[in-house]
Amino acid sequence: MTAKTSRHFSLANLLFGLPLRTADIPHQTISKKIGLAVFASDALSSSAYAIDEILIVLILAGAGALGLSLPIALAIIVLLVILTLSYEQTIHAYPGGGGAYIVARDNLGEAPAQTAGAALLTDYILTVAVSISSGAAQITSAFPELYPWRTSIALVFVAFVTIVNLRGVRESGRVFAIPTYFFLGMVVLTIGIGFFRYFAGTLGSVTGVEAIHHESLQALTLFLVLRAFSGGCTALTGVEAISNGITAFKEPRSRNAGITLMWMSGIIAVNLFGLTFLANQVGVLPSHVETGFSQIGRAVYGEASPLYLMLLGATTLILVMAANTSYADFPRLGALHAGDGFLPKQLTWRGRRLVFSWGIVTLAGVASLLIVIFNSETTRLIPLYAIGVFLSFTMSQTGMVVRWHRVGKMKPGEELEVHGAIMRFDPRWRAKQIVNGIGALVTFVVMIVFAITKFADGAWIVVIVIPALVYTFFRIHHHYGSVAQILSQGSRWPNIRQHPVKTLVLVDDVHAGTIHTINFAKSLGVPWTAVHVAIDPAKAEQVRQKWQERIGNEAHLTLLPSPYRSLTDPIHAYVEKLLEDMPNGFIHIIVGHLVMDKLREQALHQNAALVLNLALQDLDRATVTTVSYRIVDRENGKGRKRGISVT
Amino acid sequence: MTAKTSRHFSLANLLFGLPLRTADIPHQTISKKIGLAVFASDALSSSAYAIDEILIVLILAGAGALGLSLPIALAIIVLLVILTLSYEQTIHAYPGGGGAYIVARDNLGEAPAQTAGAALLTDYILTVAVSISSGAAQITSAFPELYPWRTSIALVFVAFVTIVNLRGVRESGRVFAIPTYFFLGMVVLTIGIGFFRYFAGTLGSVTGVEAIHHESLQALTLFLVLRAFSGGCTALTGVEAISNGITAFKEPRSRNAGITLMWMSGIIAVNLFGLTFLANQVGVLPSHVETGFSQIGRAVYGEASPLYLMLLGATTLILVMAANTSYADFPRLGALHAGDGFLPKQLTWRGRRLVFSWGIVTLAGVASLLIVIFNSETTRLIPLYAIGVFLSFTMSQTGMVVRWHRVGKMKPGEELEVHGAIMRFDPRWRAKQIVNGIGALVTFVVMIVFAITKFADGAWIVVIVIPALVYTFFRIHHHYGSVAQILSQGSRWPNIRQHPVKTLVLVDDVHAGTIHTINFAKSLGVPWTAVHVAIDPAKAEQVRQKWQERIGNEAHLTLLPSPYRSLTDPIHAYVEKLLEDMPNGFIHIIVGHLVMDKLREQALHQNAALVLNLALQDLDRATVTTVSYRIVDRENGKGRKRGISVT
Repeated sequence: MTAKTSRHFSLANLLFGLPLRTADIPHQTISKKIGLAVFASDALSSSAYAIDEILIVLILAGAGALGLSLPIALAIIVLLVILTLSYEQTIHAYPGGGGAYIVARDNLGEAPAQTAGAALLTDYILTVAVSISSGAAQITSAFPELYPWRTSIALVFVAFVTIVNLRGVRESGRVFAIPTYFFLGMVVLTIGIGFFRYFAGTLGSVTGVEAIHHESLQALTLFLVLRAFSGGCTALTGVEAISNGITAFKEPRSRNAGITLMWMSGIIAVNLFGLTFLANQVGVLPSHVETGFSQIGRAVYGEASPLYLMLLGATTLILVMAANTSYADFPRLGALHAGDGFLPKQLTWRGRRLVFSWGIVTLAGVASLLIVIFNSETTRLIPLYAIGVFLSFTMSQTGMVVRWHRVGKMKPGEELEVHGAIMRFDPRWRAKQIVNGIGALVTFVVMIVFAITKFADGAWIVVIVIPALVYTFFRIHHHYGSVAQILSQGSRWPNIRQHPVKTLVLVDDVHAGTIHTINFAKSLGVPWTAVHVAIDPAKAEQVRQKWQERIGNEAHLTLLPSPYRSLTDPIHAYVEKLLEDMPNGFIHIIVGHLVMDKLREQALHQNAALVLNLALQDLDRATVTTVSYRIVDRENGKGRKRGISVT
Repeated sequence: MTAKTSRHFSLANLLFGLPLRTADIPHQTISKKIGLAVFASDALSSSAYAIDEILIVLILAGAGALGLSLPIALAIIVLLVILTLSYEQTIHAYPGGGGAYIVARDNLGEAPAQTAGAALLTDYILTVAVSISSGAAQITSAFPELYPWRTSIALVFVAFVTIVNLRGVRESGRVFAIPTYFFLGMVVLTIGIGFFRYFAGTLGSVTGVEAIHHESLQALTLFLVLRAFSGGCTALTGVEAISNGITAFKEPRSRNAGITLMWMSGIIAVNLFGLTFLANQVGVLPSHVETGFSQIGRAVYGEASPLYLMLLGATTLILVMAANTSYADFPRLGALHAGDGFLPKQLTWRGRRLVFSWGIVTLAGVASLLIVIFNSETTRLIPLYAIGVFLSFTMSQTGMVVRWHRVGKMKPGEELEVHGAIMRFDPRWRAKQIVNGIGALVTFVVMIVFAITKFADGAWIVVIVIPALVYTFFRIHHHYGSVAQILSQGSRWPNIRQHPVKTLVLVDDVHAGTIHTINFAKSLGVPWTAVHVAIDPAKAEQVRQKWQERIGNEAHLTLLPSPYRSLTDPIHAYVEKLLEDMPNGFIHIIVGHLVMDKLREQALHQNAALVLNLALQDLDRATVTTVSYRIVDRENGKGRKRGISVT
């Protein structure tokens, strides 16, 4: 009997799947293989644009500087190793989910936690925008005639991923596992064949690239090298995803999540090195029209090869799927903020499929807006990206350093619980503290380098947005605190009292629905009067006559003039006046509402009940009752099943 | 006292202006000069892209074919003369507004009228998309570095015009008069200086154009010439705008509107000829990056001249303002359809400023979507454009032919009124019929030519959309008819009856707002019980305890389990069960609603009352009462003015 209405067949069920019970939540967990697909697609796929981002900076110093991309890639791999060791420790310390927000909240306090959260939320949105834009760019590399449609292609991808995610994380895991492993297979194959042809001496150069060409070259300064390094660091975005999503893994969660993290980092390192090496060998040139992946693919397989198209297809897929990492984590993090009262409580609402529907919808909306504003061009979105990630890395690692300090002060055997995470003495706390300390320091330095070198390109936007978000979070927190205080009335508890009530029926016309509404008013067993707002004076006169003929002896009808054609303003003024004459009473307004069987039919009728509810909500003592009246098309042979027959 | 709440200071008033009385409508009319600015900006500005559209087709046959643009422009001017004479007659025959919709409805019947209306509505949307995209293109011609931001620029323009129009037509007339005359001045100056330099022999050629270049040339077939002519005919879109908007003119309306039409056509003819002539002389080449206007301007004034920038600035402005023509007519036409029951009745709702707000919002939304999908590229939008205009021209002129036939059959002195337009005998009816007949024939031929020559480029979309719209219109009409029939109950009028009522209070928590809601329930003077939906079992237990302590002796509290975490499903099932046990009664559900002072604060709280209203609306005998409770932040020093003190 319960939840009957949401389990019947409907478009919502078809698209989003059947709703799930709260008790089913533990079963919604995923294996390591699926976990790699869900949480690693962002990190794995970022190599698809990271290489382009390195080259596009180096070309400023001429084609001769492009060779520096290999040492830069190696430096990024060193950074990756540091990050992986740091996060491996976090995952074991926080089996309940150890995102930067939680680690900062438990160890550094509210303000750093909100800052880390704001940084991450910003970056999840940008992950969607960047990954999907890059995915569209792979398609337009293979089919340049689609280039004018890239924004539309990207928006369709966003819509697709949004619908899949509204279905819930397990399904999306399954959907995404195939593309992730298809991509891995294609990249390994490409690197393998590329290296084979390199050693066999048959690996040629890529030709026919419409490359970016700068008339006047810049000097190869340290600043330029650091800027290229910053661009390449986008390859590391997404490494933290697993630590946020530990609870999605099967038990033993920490072990499974940790192993998945190791796999992922190993794969990223191999891909980044292999692809950068090949890019150098085949002479990939930065281009606005063709991605580096496309150039490598053409050189390794030849332009006409189906394997070239498969590589680009797989890359497009993984990039679109990479957005999925954000779809998995953004709503979770939003719900954490909301649960602590720093974001609207609605975000904690688990939707039909145990996911946080509001968060998903917000993410999709903002990311779509960014894609439209930046015309789906990855290179223009990148400067906004990655600062937030490295800021949250720093917060998280610093939090861990503080945590190890507290662990070091505990006695062996002692246990402490903070927000569900158990803290116990660990004899190797000093070594672990050093690992996280190095992580914190290195990620902080990279963040500063990124902010400085990319500042003019757009990083300044992030430098404004993150503090603005943090400020908003605290304002929201303050609001909830005030409301709770007002509602609790301190310790004085009010008595329940009876007040006088005056009943009004709002009449827009005299028809069968009106009779139904009046039946309810009459059933209350108290005196009542009727009111009509004369928006159209000619119609008002008709209503007055029909009332006189048919209902006149039941109650009086008052016509309210409406010189500004507003439905609500005259009623508001009238009710306000009545309330003044009745300083201790309620005015009870009853309004009919025609209900159509189909939403598209409902849209053809103004919802006067809703409008009136909104218009009178500032008057505490004015209560509004909606009396629905279903219109059933008799031609379709359906009867009015649940209504009172009013004839 | 009336309308007090909507006249106080608010953001809405600041942006959209104060609301206006119904009695003020006649004073909302405009002079000929303002009328030219409001209704002619579309027609005047279309020359800015019409020339490019001619050249972009002719270049397919090589640069030598570009000279054909001058004879094509002359042919378009001949067409303009025919149209102007035809519409001049329509304006005098229909002083109450003689758009294609009205003329077709009164003379040809419902189906042709809906077709003409669908065609016009489609084209108004496209006018906004095309004009604003072209406006953005003028800016990016002058500042090529802004080219990547063209879609964002176009969307900002749409937002700007939308806000100005929500303020109402008189204000927007004033706002738009200056740019229209500024544009006219700049074009006349450009043509004047251009011709002076031509006769003085100092007019050079334009250089440095990044022109479109085709490797293999097509033959200069009749088809190609007709395709170029079709492109150029976009210059005539907007000519009908004045005949739709006659009622906006000061009395004598027809005379003033007719004179404005003549002025407008004269100006268009001079501009089109002068600019096409100059384009030929300076050697304008079609380009994706630079508009023809920009090239003419550079050749006449020189690249560094401020007059060049002023010309492009004026062109941008007039194009953005051209969208205003649609903003003036689209809502009017939508209201006509809605008034006849072919579009949602809400479209007839005159908004705060005597304009049809819903129509404006719809127009802005769809046009923005088109701009995003087509990346704000004028040339890709053009093929969708103009078919609808010429279809409506044909409908309108055919309607006039039928009308003259009926006029010819009348006796001298006889008068006939159709929808408020008075028809009387006219001895010159035969001559006037021939004028409109030629108009109908010529516009029909142009429409067919356009549909054939632009079919593959996108005109096919329109060929699908217009019939689909007409079908939808008739479906809506059918719906309103069915509902009216059901509500009127034939001739059998129902009696008003009293039924049993069971009262439930929905409780989400026990706090001051809950007490307020219970006060209302108790004030009704009937027995009641309370219900809590146990979405979170732990919280439900707390609520149960608080209820027991504080309210337990007033009424019983029932906990409803909610395994799927839905608020509404358990209530729906519970109420449905109660209704089954009470086949002739009402269930009255009372729900509290926390009201915040500010909208941004309201957004932080779920609107359970609204959700419940929607969820229970399929149950006729379940009525929902909302009891508002205002939360006023005491720190701001405001008291709870209108509420009952519940302490």
